[in-house]
Amino acid sequence: MTGKLYAIGTGPGAADLITVRAAKLLASIDIVYAPAGKKGGDSLALSIVREYLGEYTKIKERHFPMTHNSLEKEQAWQSVADEIKADVIANNKVAFISLGDVMLYSTWVSILERLPTDLNMEIIPGITSFALIAARTKRPLAMETQSLVVMSCTTDKVILEQALIHNSSLVLMKAASCFAEVKGLIEKLNLLYYAVLVADASLASEKQYRNLKDVPEDEKLPYFTTILINKEW
Amino acid sequence: MTGKLYAIGTGPGAADLITVRAAKLLASIDIVYAPAGKKGGDSLALSIVREYLGEYTKIKERHFPMTHNSLEKEQAWQSVADEIKADVIANNKVAFISLGDVMLYSTWVSILERLPTDLNMEIIPGITSFALIAARTKRPLAMETQSLVVMSCTTDKVILEQALIHNSSLVLMKAASCFAEVKGLIEKLNLLYYAVLVADASLASEKQYRNLKDVPEDEKLPYFTTILINKEW
Repeated sequence: MTGKLYAIGTGPGAADLITVRAAKLLASIDIVYAPAGKKGGDSLALSIVREYLGEYTKIKERHFPMTHNSLEKEQAWQSVADEIKADVIANNKVAFISLGDVMLYSTWVSILERLPTDLNMEIIPGITSFALIAARTKRPLAMETQSLVVMSCTTDKVILEQALIHNSSLVLMKAASCFAEVKGLIEKLNLLYYAVLVADASLASEKQYRNLKDVPEDEKLPYFTTILINKEW
Repeated sequence: MTGKLYAIGTGPGAADLITVRAAKLLASIDIVYAPAGKKGGDSLALSIVREYLGEYTKIKERHFPMTHNSLEKEQAWQSVADEIKADVIANNKVAFISLGDVMLYSTWVSILERLPTDLNMEIIPGITSFALIAARTKRPLAMETQSLVVMSCTTDKVILEQALIHNSSLVLMKAASCFAEVKGLIEKLNLLYYAVLVADASLASEKQYRNLKDVPEDEKLPYFTTILINKEW
């Protein structure tokens, strides 16, 4: 049995923010599974790893629906899990790639749940988008006795408000879809001064706002929009 | 002006879990600052980067006291910050290395606070210990609508208990010094089933406990001991 599956976090976007382990490994991979890009182009994860792939690596782009229909999603996950399992059992070195870190808000976890627990497997962590954002904006995620909360802005607004009140350092992901509401909450709690917003960190389209009030009303924020709040910085 | 400072997260311990960007960069660094190792040996951060350093890189190991005397700590940070600043102004390419990610519970933040804001600088993120622990134990840090809390076990026990009650996924760092107390809390809240403990992740001395009750009473847990709890896994 030489087949093995590698789940690889590609990091936030720049090709050289992948780990040395992942970069070396990708050269010897037989089959790489990547989430399908929109409009037929490379997915972002695939564009990150492309330069590290071997000449004969087979690329399998697979579509994961972003729908609320959970049956449709579960069928997609199950189908990819079955396909990966078959490829590993057929003695291939298989990679599943995902943006950021594979164990944090990643489709990978839904695949992992559907794989046999004894499948030969290694999971390789990746740099999260918020670690890069902290680095780019020179704002610490947490210091000494601080705790850090990472959550999605799409969560219930009462829970979000409680989290903003009770924690001294927060990462709010997916801040685009409900930006006006979240900005309102942050303003109400007098936290504007401690907040920074970064969209598309490390991509060509990256934008930073040191003051949430500078974000134009008509700005179309991208999917990868994150707000960092550190009350002690 | 060709001087520049790079703050580099080395990742959790294995040399190949550093980023490709950091690995390439280290070859051209003139001076690397590393936290001093105990008993005269290499610091862990230094041992991680040693293979990537250029032949002529000067190594400056600096001691950071682990004392409660904050004046002593502040003097150490200020002295290293002053030294780094002088090296950059003298046109050196300088690196400051730190385990894990530099923006999360790192001495680097105390140095950053003491450097001029206009100093030529790039911060390069690193893999956190808990991302590696999640990968090694195959347990997700957070899924879909979950929030993730990262905190130190050395925090106030009332705050820790509230965090354990109100959050569905937690990373408890520095779990060695107060392990008995924390285990008691986890047991009281019926969370034993969802918890896993990993000491010295990715080092030769790594130990994993899927059940906290399996940790022997007389076990001397190391400084890098982390507990992961995910109530939905």
